[in-house]
Amino acid sequence: MIKIYGRNSLYEAIRYKAPLKNIYLSENVLKKDRSIIDIINDNGYSYEIKPNQFFNNERNSQGYIAYRQDYKTYGIEDLKSFKKELGRIVILDGIVDPHNYGAILRSCECFGYDLVILPNNRSCPLSETVVHVSEGAVEHIKIMYVNSLATALTTLKEIGYWIVSTDMNGTSTFKDIKKDTSLAIVIGNEGKGISKTVRNESDYILQIPMKGHINSLNASVSCGIVLYELMNW
Amino acid sequence: MIKIYGRNSLYEAIRYKAPLKNIYLSENVLKKDRSIIDIINDNGYSYEIKPNQFFNNERNSQGYIAYRQDYKTYGIEDLKSFKKELGRIVILDGIVDPHNYGAILRSCECFGYDLVILPNNRSCPLSETVVHVSEGAVEHIKIMYVNSLATALTTLKEIGYWIVSTDMNGTSTFKDIKKDTSLAIVIGNEGKGISKTVRNESDYILQIPMKGHINSLNASVSCGIVLYELMNW
Repeated sequence: MIKIYGRNSLYEAIRYKAPLKNIYLSENVLKKDRSIIDIINDNGYSYEIKPNQFFNNERNSQGYIAYRQDYKTYGIEDLKSFKKELGRIVILDGIVDPHNYGAILRSCECFGYDLVILPNNRSCPLSETVVHVSEGAVEHIKIMYVNSLATALTTLKEIGYWIVSTDMNGTSTFKDIKKDTSLAIVIGNEGKGISKTVRNESDYILQIPMKGHINSLNASVSCGIVLYELMNW
Repeated sequence: MIKIYGRNSLYEAIRYKAPLKNIYLSENVLKKDRSIIDIINDNGYSYEIKPNQFFNNERNSQGYIAYRQDYKTYGIEDLKSFKKELGRIVILDGIVDPHNYGAILRSCECFGYDLVILPNNRSCPLSETVVHVSEGAVEHIKIMYVNSLATALTTLKEIGYWIVSTDMNGTSTFKDIKKDTSLAIVIGNEGKGISKTVRNESDYILQIPMKGHINSLNASVSCGIVLYELMNW
């Protein structure tokens, strides 16, 4: 079970008909947010009102808490069977910060990506913080944890994907990327960037143009810019 | 005094000749990171080596800690005197999450913004987390806390700025924005978006094009996309 908290996360979970148990709302929410009560009722869920104090130690809950069955995640063996329904993919090559992971899921949802792939051994788990920061986006996106990113990249290339990584020393620009292709976008680790394996398998290594002294964006911001820019590709 | 931790933050602080006291490095850093020792020495700072255990409770320090004099922040009275040296500005209309604030400072630095303005009473303070997440960007950017955003916006308009806010119901597109103008970009609160005051004072209310179900990006991601897109304006 995973705890969901905050209005947006709960709202999206209900809208997506997620397997929820024990929805708790505060007295304040009952007074002020009729629309959440309606959507709960309309979708056949039940809820329990708790005193406002119940939420005092539940940081960022805003008076909304629910427990959800763990998210279904996928494995490499599912990749080929997805083929026909797969659109664009984001691969997180060692993202360890739950805020980044959550914000990236949100960007994926906003820009129409279906699947996020992460390696098992160097990634942030799908934690409560991730779910919360994703503001419900996690309900709309398939998440796949794999033992080997190298194998995942090879499989993706076999089924027609082009691998686009981002790196501050990259040599490709957005304009180099062939239009109307199946794209898998790789975002590297917060400190170290993309791994050697990914570098070797990449069809393009993109550099986002900038003009500061530091030239290194936050990982979730980089990801957002790339997904945004490639929206019309 | 504010604690700085992590390699990048310390590195930028030294490079910027920030007023630092008590630089602590771990034994591991001493062994593996000659370049930080060199830049410390070259800039006339001193450091102390501490056993690796000293850093055990210092999450995310990576073995690098320093104490820095509080950052100089500015007030509304400084705005007119800045005029000649002021480039583009970012205004944070109620950003409360330190991760967002830090990531936004980083984007500001990467896209050549000079000044960030925040209202005193609805903003995240310039905390250690903000400084850490900014990865040193905070050293390069002027930060101004004001009592009234309305007054700040009026002053900015008087000195020739155009106010561009972002909102999921905005009616302007990037193409509407006049080129070669002085721009002040407003990013709204994480939950509520831009305030009524800002809405009334905005010359453009931008909508970032998207194609998902949720249509609401993380605040720092929105900001990154807007600064990126306006880079060639």
